[in-house]
Amino acid sequence: MPTSPEQVLIVSGSQQGLDLVGKALIDPGSKVLVESPTYLGALQAFAQFEPKFAALPADAEGLAVDAIDAPALRDARFAYVMPTFQNPTGLTLPAGRRAALAALAREHDLWLVEDDPYGELWYRSAPPPSLRAYAPERTIRLGSLSKVLAPGLRLGFLIAPADVIDVLVRIKQATDLHTSTLTQRAATHVLASGLLKTHLPHVRALYADRCAVMLDALRTGFPTDVRWTEPDGGMFIWVELPPSLDAGTLLPLAIERKVAFVPGEPFCASAPERNHVRLSFVTVAPERIREGVQILGALLREFKS
Amino acid sequence: MPTSPEQVLIVSGSQQGLDLVGKALIDPGSKVLVESPTYLGALQAFAQFEPKFAALPADAEGLAVDAIDAPALRDARFAYVMPTFQNPTGLTLPAGRRAALAALAREHDLWLVEDDPYGELWYRSAPPPSLRAYAPERTIRLGSLSKVLAPGLRLGFLIAPADVIDVLVRIKQATDLHTSTLTQRAATHVLASGLLKTHLPHVRALYADRCAVMLDALRTGFPTDVRWTEPDGGMFIWVELPPSLDAGTLLPLAIERKVAFVPGEPFCASAPERNHVRLSFVTVAPERIREGVQILGALLREFKS
Repeated sequence: MPTSPEQVLIVSGSQQGLDLVGKALIDPGSKVLVESPTYLGALQAFAQFEPKFAALPADAEGLAVDAIDAPALRDARFAYVMPTFQNPTGLTLPAGRRAALAALAREHDLWLVEDDPYGELWYRSAPPPSLRAYAPERTIRLGSLSKVLAPGLRLGFLIAPADVIDVLVRIKQATDLHTSTLTQRAATHVLASGLLKTHLPHVRALYADRCAVMLDALRTGFPTDVRWTEPDGGMFIWVELPPSLDAGTLLPLAIERKVAFVPGEPFCASAPERNHVRLSFVTVAPERIREGVQILGALLREFKS
Repeated sequence: MPTSPEQVLIVSGSQQGLDLVGKALIDPGSKVLVESPTYLGALQAFAQFEPKFAALPADAEGLAVDAIDAPALRDARFAYVMPTFQNPTGLTLPAGRRAALAALAREHDLWLVEDDPYGELWYRSAPPPSLRAYAPERTIRLGSLSKVLAPGLRLGFLIAPADVIDVLVRIKQATDLHTSTLTQRAATHVLASGLLKTHLPHVRALYADRCAVMLDALRTGFPTDVRWTEPDGGMFIWVELPPSLDAGTLLPLAIERKVAFVPGEPFCASAPERNHVRLSFVTVAPERIREGVQILGALLREFKS
């Protein structure tokens, strides 16, 4: 049962939601549980308040809920989780793991901060129910218009029990008074017009196609000892290079050849994974994706030899 | 000489500028110098980072720069000052005091956070040069479109030496990535159109008239032992009631009679002034101003007898 009815707070992009949550819940030295890797902007937002990050266990399907030790949860202020088309891995937490995580949160009075900017960008079928659906009284859920409408609007929303919202509203008032009413008006107009309903299927089809093209290009263009995730939605593929390769060293060489990627290291709160790379496929045309992957593959082969 | 060239950072309303400055410069227990009374939203923004506020000396002309003791400045992270048409007093710091404050800041390596949302709302003549004009290398200046264009845009700006801006840009990125490009576009369009140049004289004349009406109504409608400031611009008159009266007690009685004011207490970082009231004259028509002041005056007389 919810501790209080849920309410919605409009925020200046879901990045601001992370900042407000950090202000509310983190003191210097507080334990904050995160996936590893996780969204680097969340690490940056929370780091402002000087927590100690602790990485949750993971496997090929993402967060390994069954492997979480109860002592690891003790005194944790919250667990920050992106269960759907995660940034940077592209992985989606299966329904069973979501239910198990929700049960764990209930049992240990743990707050779940569920970040879901990509959930609408599914390619085959809608993702499993949100963490909020399983444990509304323990979940602070963040959503965004940035990936489905326009990032420049800076409009996100936060759904949480009313007593949590009360606290966050006071913090937001001290932080920036309120979110622009002009952008809220514009978004209300667009949402009421139904544009999103006709727009989203096009976006999903476009991204699904580009994702398939990149996966195909990786299979044909990358060395056989490189692995990668196969996302069902979102914007990213997470690539694991052989342990001897350092993505940070490769980046300037790739940029010389006009191909960019994001090295995996800043996505890790601890134990940096230097042999990982985040690839994004959403803003580039299919032929350019093929070309870019081929160039990267050639670079990897050169570097190894 | 500036330590580095100055730069501008666009912020999501100048309230966000205060939040970013607080994040950058305040640690728990840091000394922050403020006027007393001062803008309560600044106290709220800074209080998030748990400083110790120290009140600067004041007299009838505002900040009493000559009365500032050098030891009071020691270890202060910054002095927060609203030198023009101050909120809540409406007072404007004379040019001589600005120069003296700038000299003090230089001598003691003190940062001045100059908040100037009301400077364009002058009634007789433009206010003295900004603190920034006197000590650009020691000043973080905040401006806003909220009082001259539209508060709902949430657009403000911060001018500071480039090395300060570098720090604040990184903090802003972790806080909300960036300010809405839609609202920045809209404001750019309005500013480029010259609308502000034709609009401001009307606003100045409107507010000057309403201020004069309220001052006249105070002279005829308020008891003779009540004092108030006579602003040359801005939005507020600061009223000092006899020491025996408590503005917080009067407020619900005034609201019953359909008149609202803001009690002075929350504008004071320490030593709350319970017998002060902030009146605003800008959104109400002249005849309503006269009526409201008359009702408040009658209430004051009843309460004293």
